[in-house]
Amino acid sequence: MPTRSTVIAPAWLARVEPGLDVETGMAVVVQGDRIAAIEPVDRARAAHPQAEFIDLPGHLLCPGFVNLHCHAAMSLLRGAGDDLPLERWLGERIWPIEGQLMSPEFVHDGALLGCHELLLGGVTCVNDMYFFPESMLQAARALGMRASAGIVVIDFPSAWGTGPDDYLAKGLAMRDRWLDDPLVGFTLAPHAPYTVGDDALRRVATLSQELGLPVHIHVHETAQEIAQSVEQHGCRPLERLRRLGLLGPDLIAVHAVHLDPAEIALLARHSASVAHCPHSNLKLGSGIAPIAELLDAGVRIGLGTDGAASNNRLDLLHEAHTAAMLAKGASQRAEVFPARAVLEAMTLGGARALGKEDEIGSIRTGKQADLVAVDLHAPESRPVFDPISHLIYTAGREHVADVWIAGHHVVRKRQLAAMNGRTALSDVVGRIGVWQNRISRILSGTAAS
Amino acid sequence: MPTRSTVIAPAWLARVEPGLDVETGMAVVVQGDRIAAIEPVDRARAAHPQAEFIDLPGHLLCPGFVNLHCHAAMSLLRGAGDDLPLERWLGERIWPIEGQLMSPEFVHDGALLGCHELLLGGVTCVNDMYFFPESMLQAARALGMRASAGIVVIDFPSAWGTGPDDYLAKGLAMRDRWLDDPLVGFTLAPHAPYTVGDDALRRVATLSQELGLPVHIHVHETAQEIAQSVEQHGCRPLERLRRLGLLGPDLIAVHAVHLDPAEIALLARHSASVAHCPHSNLKLGSGIAPIAELLDAGVRIGLGTDGAASNNRLDLLHEAHTAAMLAKGASQRAEVFPARAVLEAMTLGGARALGKEDEIGSIRTGKQADLVAVDLHAPESRPVFDPISHLIYTAGREHVADVWIAGHHVVRKRQLAAMNGRTALSDVVGRIGVWQNRISRILSGTAAS
Repeated sequence: MPTRSTVIAPAWLARVEPGLDVETGMAVVVQGDRIAAIEPVDRARAAHPQAEFIDLPGHLLCPGFVNLHCHAAMSLLRGAGDDLPLERWLGERIWPIEGQLMSPEFVHDGALLGCHELLLGGVTCVNDMYFFPESMLQAARALGMRASAGIVVIDFPSAWGTGPDDYLAKGLAMRDRWLDDPLVGFTLAPHAPYTVGDDALRRVATLSQELGLPVHIHVHETAQEIAQSVEQHGCRPLERLRRLGLLGPDLIAVHAVHLDPAEIALLARHSASVAHCPHSNLKLGSGIAPIAELLDAGVRIGLGTDGAASNNRLDLLHEAHTAAMLAKGASQRAEVFPARAVLEAMTLGGARALGKEDEIGSIRTGKQADLVAVDLHAPESRPVFDPISHLIYTAGREHVADVWIAGHHVVRKRQLAAMNGRTALSDVVGRIGVWQNRISRILSGTAAS
Repeated sequence: MPTRSTVIAPAWLARVEPGLDVETGMAVVVQGDRIAAIEPVDRARAAHPQAEFIDLPGHLLCPGFVNLHCHAAMSLLRGAGDDLPLERWLGERIWPIEGQLMSPEFVHDGALLGCHELLLGGVTCVNDMYFFPESMLQAARALGMRASAGIVVIDFPSAWGTGPDDYLAKGLAMRDRWLDDPLVGFTLAPHAPYTVGDDALRRVATLSQELGLPVHIHVHETAQEIAQSVEQHGCRPLERLRRLGLLGPDLIAVHAVHLDPAEIALLARHSASVAHCPHSNLKLGSGIAPIAELLDAGVRIGLGTDGAASNNRLDLLHEAHTAAMLAKGASQRAEVFPARAVLEAMTLGGARALGKEDEIGSIRTGKQADLVAVDLHAPESRPVFDPISHLIYTAGREHVADVWIAGHHVVRKRQLAAMNGRTALSDVVGRIGVWQNRISRILSGTAAS
């Protein structure tokens, strides 16, 4: 079978490559799973007469979005616990539900629902952390998505494992089973400093070095987490991670809301990445991450949606909009986190945090063809003075028109293109009512007790 | 002609009336421009066999949204000045463009574009402030929208008038021309304390009392505005408004970002309303309004989009989402501004600020039939544990399905229903390119100079 090829000709192209801004009149040539060329439209068509030609007037083509922190399966818990701070939200809502329902089926159905929402919103790669991670991978791959699964580690037992040793053993075995799928990656995912002890964190540090895996961990999310660490360990959580050997370019520090200037400098010096999840931080009352200061210090930033139980919308463009707004508003500096920097964070920033910046995150010849086309010609987007401004400040996920992952055209005119994706989703939609009833029963039990 | 009547049967009804929460199995009966009854679906159908029956499974029906602060015509300037603080944004971008292009045609075309966006997002009443307000009214009314026009007052001349006396004379004459349209209202709209002198503000206070008109004014938007007032007038702007007789239940204090505790108490004591515009405040780097403290003090809150030049999206549901998030995050109290309070702010809160709470803002027998139906059964909204939570935390304007204003079904299944609205809009969409070219030329001249 000859390699399929496609010539995509958008009105505007944003490659997210150094020194390049918005280009017009350019086409992206896709062959197989890779970007084969970026050249003027006429030349591309002449050079590839057999290719499918996709004309996208009024559309901006940019790299696929990388969601750097998600619990996709928690979409089944969307809206199950609002207006509660983190500790009560976890203790009174999330953990009781998870305790009763956690199973491969729960994770599969929730992840399929969540990944479907992400995909239609332009996310081509999701970095996930949850129990039964293999069920998440199956869901993401059914939709054609690129996914990074967290090898979760937590001190308490769950339906997925008995403790750190068991979680690591199961996670590493899972990793072996997926080695042949180039769209699947892994992180080590200790839940948080307050739920994982020193021994397990040391093992994670060693494994990260041995296997070259990123470490995906919630850290400095709330003021309470920090106070508790000082009391229990005699230092703040980030310092504890440093002592345990976890601070380095492989660290994905999720949330990082409460940071002092020395900690910001530490993250920068170690080339660690922050997964900024503004909606989750705001909704749980955790606070506002010091993005202006992190950017000033040169800390690497990616964006995450977190799970739908604390957001409640898995929409990375929405997250990008709020990230830009919040950085400006909190610092009272309108020039902070301009649209181009936000676009870089949600594409190349996420790729870099995952160690995949040579494969995804920008539009460059030889890279994987993970692409998103956003329609900017709806009346509510007009006029257009700067398409990157419009992508971040004006457009919504409803304007995401087409998505390619590894060269596959997985969303076509706002519809799932892959037959197996459509089928998988319609099955799940039919089962959501069952999950909703089960969760409602648990919630009414919790409220009554 | 017999009065048209409609029975609307949503899955969930949120009346925004004291003591009532979400109801199921209830229908809203609309006769002419008013709500005639709210009763169980079967009884409503039996009592009104000739009525059009509109079945809305999976939809939440709530009062139409009231946008308490907008410059709808500025949608033509969408994205024309990003990443700039208020003073530079006004001085380098907005005022130069307005200075050259301001005309009834500019305002009409921009307002039609802006009102179209608002209407499809569920806004049934817009409180606007801009030059050539009559052109805004014509645009809003062409789409079937309810609108409140600001009788703008500003010390400097513009294409619309020579100074305060002229602005007031023209505005009051305009008001007389629209007295017969029950969907049109007015406010006195002095631009801001820093652009309007004491004499004009005193005249506004007198006219407000004589005519019973609300006073719609930007105030305490930036720290610089306050510092300048202290230097020039020896007091902070709100205190100056108080001395000039403007502080009372008719005051719509737009932005109110920088407030000390005494000012918050003052606003509460005088029953003034705050028009909270979170995106504009964030994007211009103005800061974060102390919503938790305002709510604690019992200050009346409404929500506004501001204009598309500083937002850049006229989407009140998006504004509501951010308002909730920001109030929680800034106060680090997750329980602040819960979904029900946000829904009240964006409906009854706005109506109250405009002095229209007996006519609009909630679903009550005898009130105007301004209604919005939001589809919560899309996969990305499922499951649904609490439809009001979903409205604020999950849904987007893309889920607004149907809109009624004064009993007219102006948006039907996400499409403009009114023929004249569709025609008016398609004319404008054709002209946007012309405005875009003119604005681009001015911007490149500004950049070069």
